[in-house]
Amino acid sequence: MASNILINGQPERSVDVTDRGFAYGQGVFETIVLNKSQPIAWSLHMQRLQTGANRLGIPVTPDLIDQLEYDLQQLLALQANIPERQILKVTVTRGSGGRGYAVSGALKPNRVVALNPYPEYPDQPAQNGISVIKCQTRLALSPLLAGIKHLNRLEQVLARAEWDDSSIREGLVQDADGYLAEGTMSNLFWVKNNHLYTPELARCGVAGIVRQRIMSIASDLGLAISLGDFSEAELDLCDELFVCNSVIGIWPVIKIIQLNQTEQKLTIGPVSRLLQQQLAVEGIY
Amino acid sequence: MASNILINGQPERSVDVTDRGFAYGQGVFETIVLNKSQPIAWSLHMQRLQTGANRLGIPVTPDLIDQLEYDLQQLLALQANIPERQILKVTVTRGSGGRGYAVSGALKPNRVVALNPYPEYPDQPAQNGISVIKCQTRLALSPLLAGIKHLNRLEQVLARAEWDDSSIREGLVQDADGYLAEGTMSNLFWVKNNHLYTPELARCGVAGIVRQRIMSIASDLGLAISLGDFSEAELDLCDELFVCNSVIGIWPVIKIIQLNQTEQKLTIGPVSRLLQQQLAVEGIY
Repeated sequence: MASNILINGQPERSVDVTDRGFAYGQGVFETIVLNKSQPIAWSLHMQRLQTGANRLGIPVTPDLIDQLEYDLQQLLALQANIPERQILKVTVTRGSGGRGYAVSGALKPNRVVALNPYPEYPDQPAQNGISVIKCQTRLALSPLLAGIKHLNRLEQVLARAEWDDSSIREGLVQDADGYLAEGTMSNLFWVKNNHLYTPELARCGVAGIVRQRIMSIASDLGLAISLGDFSEAELDLCDELFVCNSVIGIWPVIKIIQLNQTEQKLTIGPVSRLLQQQLAVEGIY
Repeated sequence: MASNILINGQPERSVDVTDRGFAYGQGVFETIVLNKSQPIAWSLHMQRLQTGANRLGIPVTPDLIDQLEYDLQQLLALQANIPERQILKVTVTRGSGGRGYAVSGALKPNRVVALNPYPEYPDQPAQNGISVIKCQTRLALSPLLAGIKHLNRLEQVLARAEWDDSSIREGLVQDADGYLAEGTMSNLFWVKNNHLYTPELARCGVAGIVRQRIMSIASDLGLAISLGDFSEAELDLCDELFVCNSVIGIWPVIKIIQLNQTEQKLTIGPVSRLLQQQLAVEGIY
């Protein structure tokens, strides 16, 4: 089997246990869709990777970004048949070593580039909509880490572990103050009176690339959009709700399941469909 | 060179990049001192490991604890000369795989057992006392994760990165509400009028094994101790301050450096010395 992973450009699949990504989560990652070998929104992903790395004291230079692109080309060159769509996961860590939490000396970042199959969604959630559950796990407020996609993801793991009914495709998560934050693996948007709303994510959460694209598209379309701190009660009266990320694009929500098992039904509305169409033009669908 | 690391009992030193410890920090670890091959406070460390693992959905059975002990014996058997003191690091992760944040199927935990040299402290900080700095990084409040020693340690890494003056041996960190929490790698105690105080750590921080031993020893000695939420101002009037962990034992603080460069001097007092003596009996020094 041809290798689907390169570590620092070499066909390996494991990292030293002294890697600071493993030991402390001192690393960032990106999940990028490839359409016929073309990475979607590559420069936006690399921009976020660099912002996150800066925040965590990981020296990500333009050279390193070039190396990641070269690694991707190497992996693609090894494939006998290029799938229509596949997933690229890029991880950059602070490197191996240091004494405890302190980084000592000139540690070089480690880079991991992995190609994986695009997941199958036979139930066509983008078309048919999904059920979501309200999670109990709350995201801690951490302005230093908010927005970036780092390797400290225990809160998401704990929130995702709250349900195992495979018909529920996502969980809605609040922050410690009780404001809506995000899905376990996605960002949230809702629509009321043709106005878009999304959590600001200044104190927790991951600011997704598709979220960023949606805000930009909404602005181009003259669609009003508000970022802020919103309570879950806002969803009781919304016209449309959807979750989004780079892999799934937009999944409209047709059912919200509450803790007490009561359900709220929603219909898939015109704003969700319009944004799906606009994203499809960019290869995000 | 003989191996100093076993992974699942095998002499390896790297973990698969799909390990959930690497990908998300879904793992726990313990740092244990060996005195002439004898692990100090083994059962307390294993208890905390198990508590943390339960919290993170990692199935740690008594069998797995036995395997960790066996791994340690294997590593010791490989050593030509047993050092007087060395450090054992034990890490247990949720294992490799799963689709995204969800754990799927019967993943087996991965266990990493590593022997490392005991650090040199030529300036004898336990004897002579240390300087500490007040950090700006604040710990997010996360009751779900508070107390346990998991692999999401970015806050500690960021706090530790605030200074690089090697004469400063530790940083004092507050929580998001402005209460004293811990050191970057240690727990805090202070003394006022023969009364011991330490942060409660119900919403953030790591509840250390030496902290636990100190609370127990204080109780045996009839020394009053209060756990709670305390502001940094408490330190202005304290008689003694010390930091502690399993590797360093107790380091008394003789200087607190403030952000504005002003300094507070402290002397090493009788309670710190008494607790050091008591811990030394247990091999913690």
